[in-house]
Amino acid sequence: MASAPITSSSQVLTLPDPLPLDGGQQLENVQIAYETYGDLNETRSNAIFIAHALTGDQHVASPHPKTGKEGWWLRMVGPGKPIDTDKFFVICANVVGSCMGSTGPASPGPDGEPYGMAFPVITIRDMVRGHIALLDALGIERLHAVVGGSMGGMQALSLAANFPDRTAAALVIASTARHSAQNIAFHEVGRQAIMADPEWRDGDYSGHGKGPEKGLAVARMAAHITYLSEAGLTDKFGRNLQDRAEKTFGFDADFQVESYLRYQGISFTDRFDANSYLYITRAMDYFDLAEEHGGLLANAFAKSQARFCLISFDTDWLYPTAESRAIVHALNAAGAPVSFVELSAPYGHDSFLLDVPELDRVISGFIEQ
Amino acid sequence: MASAPITSSSQVLTLPDPLPLDGGQQLENVQIAYETYGDLNETRSNAIFIAHALTGDQHVASPHPKTGKEGWWLRMVGPGKPIDTDKFFVICANVVGSCMGSTGPASPGPDGEPYGMAFPVITIRDMVRGHIALLDALGIERLHAVVGGSMGGMQALSLAANFPDRTAAALVIASTARHSAQNIAFHEVGRQAIMADPEWRDGDYSGHGKGPEKGLAVARMAAHITYLSEAGLTDKFGRNLQDRAEKTFGFDADFQVESYLRYQGISFTDRFDANSYLYITRAMDYFDLAEEHGGLLANAFAKSQARFCLISFDTDWLYPTAESRAIVHALNAAGAPVSFVELSAPYGHDSFLLDVPELDRVISGFIEQ
Repeated sequence: MASAPITSSSQVLTLPDPLPLDGGQQLENVQIAYETYGDLNETRSNAIFIAHALTGDQHVASPHPKTGKEGWWLRMVGPGKPIDTDKFFVICANVVGSCMGSTGPASPGPDGEPYGMAFPVITIRDMVRGHIALLDALGIERLHAVVGGSMGGMQALSLAANFPDRTAAALVIASTARHSAQNIAFHEVGRQAIMADPEWRDGDYSGHGKGPEKGLAVARMAAHITYLSEAGLTDKFGRNLQDRAEKTFGFDADFQVESYLRYQGISFTDRFDANSYLYITRAMDYFDLAEEHGGLLANAFAKSQARFCLISFDTDWLYPTAESRAIVHALNAAGAPVSFVELSAPYGHDSFLLDVPELDRVISGFIEQ
Repeated sequence: MASAPITSSSQVLTLPDPLPLDGGQQLENVQIAYETYGDLNETRSNAIFIAHALTGDQHVASPHPKTGKEGWWLRMVGPGKPIDTDKFFVICANVVGSCMGSTGPASPGPDGEPYGMAFPVITIRDMVRGHIALLDALGIERLHAVVGGSMGGMQALSLAANFPDRTAAALVIASTARHSAQNIAFHEVGRQAIMADPEWRDGDYSGHGKGPEKGLAVARMAAHITYLSEAGLTDKFGRNLQDRAEKTFGFDADFQVESYLRYQGISFTDRFDANSYLYITRAMDYFDLAEEHGGLLANAFAKSQARFCLISFDTDWLYPTAESRAIVHALNAAGAPVSFVELSAPYGHDSFLLDVPELDRVISGFIEQ
């Protein structure tokens, strides 16, 4: 994809105050790594916060420093793009618990050594508290919009629900208000794969080589299947063999889909920390916005004055349309303005990251409103 | 479940001839462990062969010797049951490649040591060749029916297609004529989980403790999710916590679904061999009945004179109804008599093993025909 020139600013903020956590602890000396694109206007009213997904990061429209790959939503963010950086001041921050510059389990703890499993278990709301602290530091009282797909959508919902004064709009794509039993189950497989790797060393692998690479690769492989649709996998790979005319009657990656998955697993370990994967999947599994608000999802939005837009994809079986519809019903019950669309796209859950022109139109239409 | 008294006979047959394999090799001194129930009639015309699934075994209606659990299809097989052992002589054999008495990677090879990864890669058709050799030894020229669910259904299809004189009927439940890209992908995750475990030792773990238990448990956990429906998991577990009132903000199995999955993984390692898991999943991934017959599924059934019955379940996303329908269309094109029903059951792929009264009626109706 041709990419328009875009200027980004990469910074790290050290929060002036400890970050209170849902688990009851406080996190001291929290760093938030973030990028901004475009200019904040004089009234500070044109800021859009983009929340990233499980393995995403702040490099929404700038090259990834480890892989060199283009920003993960470059197709959506930039001058003249659906989220237009000529008009909006776009902020994207690495979530607390991650490994791209914000404080997480690989960061030094109070004793100067990496936290490892001494890092506190965090929640989606804790991540959002970090985002709010960043907005405070930037002097942004109220966002024009908060936008996110997948776990980013959870953050968008949490921000609009728990900090109702801080955003005028929330755009929630391919997401859910709570993790289902099946969602939890897949994450648990990934966590067990990491913890089964002896190189994990109870999380204390820093200084001991490359850590639980094999376990992390297996975790990524299992998760990756859930990001794609069955039909999409069939269209892309079917039963095609990989660089061979015949099956080998062995355990090499005979099939293209095997080779693809192995590559996805191995390459992931070059850019992501295994303990961060444990902590962030746990935060997602713990996410249940209704539970936070007395068990009724509509209650979560009682104080919200934001406009909402929900988008789902018809081939997404990780967070299927019914999950978005449940949120829409709760917003209706709360009297919140909401628009909802299910888009047709062949890519499964990953559709929100891929070439779906209708998604671009819905996003720009909602953002510019 | 109350179980009617049933008499089974457990035996092991050593094949008189080497077993030719699709990979081009021959397997010598093959043993087939099997059970029979009921009596063979004088015309040897009342035999029903039941083919088991990936992790199944010959103990279809007798207690499992390792776990002590009742036979895996006790609800279906026995006196007065849908597959009535008062009328039929029921045979169930452990597939070649497995680990319950038939020759597999844990069996001694020519040098007296366990084969390990020196065991040849086998196919579904190779398993069926073993079944045919057993029928030869038992003097059964033509089965009344071959019956199987999941991988058992693949064997039923393969037997009817490749040995068209050997059965008068084939009952194929929750199965497919070929493994899809998604099917292969999930199996590859399981294989990589096993191979990532250093205790796997390139398959040479015999005599070195308990083998790659952790990797095998992860493989089983990932597979188990695919056997259940999303709605079934939600109904059974939802987000219920396990023996606790509050989330622990840790990595214990807070959720019931986590605890359940961990148990499924760990208990599996007590009864199954990791290398067998590699070989049998490989056989399933290689299965493509059309490819074996010039690329056209209808060709596979050109010489068949059997009656067919296909059964799918509406919540089975591993081998969804469309897979059964494709087989029905091929049978129609081949002019074979076929009946087909999609049953409604909440249990996903595992429905074929569970309490679905309509399944009992369809099976007995087809068998008694």
